[in-house]
Amino acid sequence: MVKKVLKFGGTSVGSIKRIQHVANIIQKEHSAGNQVIAIVSAMAGKTNDLINLSKDICDEFNKRELDVLLSSGEQITAALLAGALIKIKINAKSWLNWQIPILTEGAHSNARIININIKTINDFLNKKGVAIIPGFQGISKIGDITTIGRGGSDATAVAVAKIFNADACEIYTDVDGVFSTDPKKIPVAKKIDKISYDEMLELSSLGAKVMQPSAVQTAMMYNIPLEVKSTFTDRPGTKIFSQDNIDYTKSVTGVAYSKDDAKITIIGVKDKPGVAANIFEPLSKAQINVDMVIQNISSDQKTTDITFTIKRDEVYKTIEILKNNKDIEYEDISHNNKVAKVSIVGAGMVSTPGITYKMFRALSDKKINILAISTSEIKLSVIIDEKNTLEAIKKLHTIFDLD
Amino acid sequence: MVKKVLKFGGTSVGSIKRIQHVANIIQKEHSAGNQVIAIVSAMAGKTNDLINLSKDICDEFNKRELDVLLSSGEQITAALLAGALIKIKINAKSWLNWQIPILTEGAHSNARIININIKTINDFLNKKGVAIIPGFQGISKIGDITTIGRGGSDATAVAVAKIFNADACEIYTDVDGVFSTDPKKIPVAKKIDKISYDEMLELSSLGAKVMQPSAVQTAMMYNIPLEVKSTFTDRPGTKIFSQDNIDYTKSVTGVAYSKDDAKITIIGVKDKPGVAANIFEPLSKAQINVDMVIQNISSDQKTTDITFTIKRDEVYKTIEILKNNKDIEYEDISHNNKVAKVSIVGAGMVSTPGITYKMFRALSDKKINILAISTSEIKLSVIIDEKNTLEAIKKLHTIFDLD
Repeated sequence: MVKKVLKFGGTSVGSIKRIQHVANIIQKEHSAGNQVIAIVSAMAGKTNDLINLSKDICDEFNKRELDVLLSSGEQITAALLAGALIKIKINAKSWLNWQIPILTEGAHSNARIININIKTINDFLNKKGVAIIPGFQGISKIGDITTIGRGGSDATAVAVAKIFNADACEIYTDVDGVFSTDPKKIPVAKKIDKISYDEMLELSSLGAKVMQPSAVQTAMMYNIPLEVKSTFTDRPGTKIFSQDNIDYTKSVTGVAYSKDDAKITIIGVKDKPGVAANIFEPLSKAQINVDMVIQNISSDQKTTDITFTIKRDEVYKTIEILKNNKDIEYEDISHNNKVAKVSIVGAGMVSTPGITYKMFRALSDKKINILAISTSEIKLSVIIDEKNTLEAIKKLHTIFDLD
Repeated sequence: MVKKVLKFGGTSVGSIKRIQHVANIIQKEHSAGNQVIAIVSAMAGKTNDLINLSKDICDEFNKRELDVLLSSGEQITAALLAGALIKIKINAKSWLNWQIPILTEGAHSNARIININIKTINDFLNKKGVAIIPGFQGISKIGDITTIGRGGSDATAVAVAKIFNADACEIYTDVDGVFSTDPKKIPVAKKIDKISYDEMLELSSLGAKVMQPSAVQTAMMYNIPLEVKSTFTDRPGTKIFSQDNIDYTKSVTGVAYSKDDAKITIIGVKDKPGVAANIFEPLSKAQINVDMVIQNISSDQKTTDITFTIKRDEVYKTIEILKNNKDIEYEDISHNNKVAKVSIVGAGMVSTPGITYKMFRALSDKKINILAISTSEIKLSVIIDEKNTLEAIKKLHTIFDLD
């Protein structure tokens, strides 16, 4: 007997028809003799509707009450799915987080799961029951409802898989799996059959948002095998393992890109010790997420140019903070709102020489100017003009044999 | 210091604007130094939306899961109202039923509140906090979510008022209070300032649905004074007391009517002991609610005609059950779908002679034929042709000095 955690995202449960389809998927697993715990998201659009209600009251809606509000979304899906299963004669039951309980710690809207009581649900599974758990939420030590951040249902699925010692954790979504690049933009994009946690992390944090990154991290930490697959087809999905379990035939696994980036350059910064800290500390305090940072060597040894990238909608806030920063001296600030980040990702890169050169040459062949570069063991990212994004992805996809 | 339970119905919290208005009402009470516990319904239409979702799966949606589903409606209102209060600097907090807890017993969708833990909330009230509780729901002894029937938020309000020993229980709704008859139909209808529990019960069960009858019953049992008032005006509402506290200057307090009635007559029933039980037992088992029953004295002592009224949408089901009933013998069954019940209600009726005669005479003056009659201590009901309803109400409203 196999114990499976199946997680169904918002589009997978976006209508009654789809919830009934999910019930059929669970029925198939159940008939095959598997024990099933299903984790469900709120119906597509529901969480945004609730957030908008709260914003109609005020933008800084009390976070404790926001969690009470938002948690209703997954509660509704859980009840509907349990009802749909019972209708097709499966002994199913929804378990709200306080009923289990799923204990969390940390701030409202950003809590972490620290413990899950498994006894009652395991008893139920042993009696051929199917347990339905709303994702994204838990309770705090003082018994308040908490939520664990947008996309948190993935984190719930992985935590449940870990604590229940499940044999499989399958993430059902609206795409066939993880692709070598965005299939909507590049039709020759290919579904990846197997991928390592690291690669998946790089791909997902770079815009291929199939799974929530922190959930992948947790799976990696506890070595929980994942599979991302489509709710709407029978095709096998993408299996996510630790690197050791994958034979790499290709050095590059995928090409990712992120939109909505912007580049800021501080020109002629007085180059003295601590200057980087002086620049970035106030940004970090203002919750501005700085991505790539490049500091050019200063030619006169006295001033330097510092370039970094952030999300586009934080450009003006960032510039304002820089201008009000009395701890730094500089000549000017320039910004470019129309940039994109394109990255090649692959666990095989580290053992393949010449990847960097091959990437730069390919872009140069297409006359695409590289505005900034950043590298890691399994990733190579460049910032380019936004208008060249598609051409760059296509070219890289081809030269690294992904078509 | 006065402890008040304020209950806000679905239309009172039907939009964010209205929830903010409710927050202002609570703020006023709070500034006046009163302790406030607010009980909230689901936003208008929300419960029906959720029921429709469940019906899209099946009509006999599992009752345990239906309670999980429906309870989300009041949960959403509670969070939004708490957030709206915090926004205007009032220390408010929502308490879901499992957090208090509010213990219930009885079947899902029809549970009864049996206990409420008051300590935590009382501590909060003593620190000038405003407690928000979703109505209509509780938890069972085994920790499942239960609901206490449609309109159950009134029952929650009365139970909370009783167990917290509140000084007042105010039911905020979308009308000014209880009227001497339907103000939409009869413009001279007058708001009643004071009414007894019994009268309120007769009026509400007869179609003046301002408050849920079982909540009025509970209030009567524990002698909890109620006030029904409008969320949208500042006018005083209708106070509901025990009869002893009211001086009756009029014998009749109001004229009620119910639509959607139907009358069924079984003609030539063999009159033998137990025949009534044989007729009505199968109907009761089929959950058909029989209202008035009239059995004519049989002229030949051998057969009799039995007439009873039911809701119109149950006519065909009822006739089918009668036809399949092998325990009764009769000549024919006739039915009339176009009847209405008109009632005069008044605690003063019992001490005023001639009320019955006066009512019959008034209807006869208008050439309105009485199809059936039923009486109680504080109520006199007649079944008439539906087309005469308005005329009958008008006439009765006038002759009993209610205009």
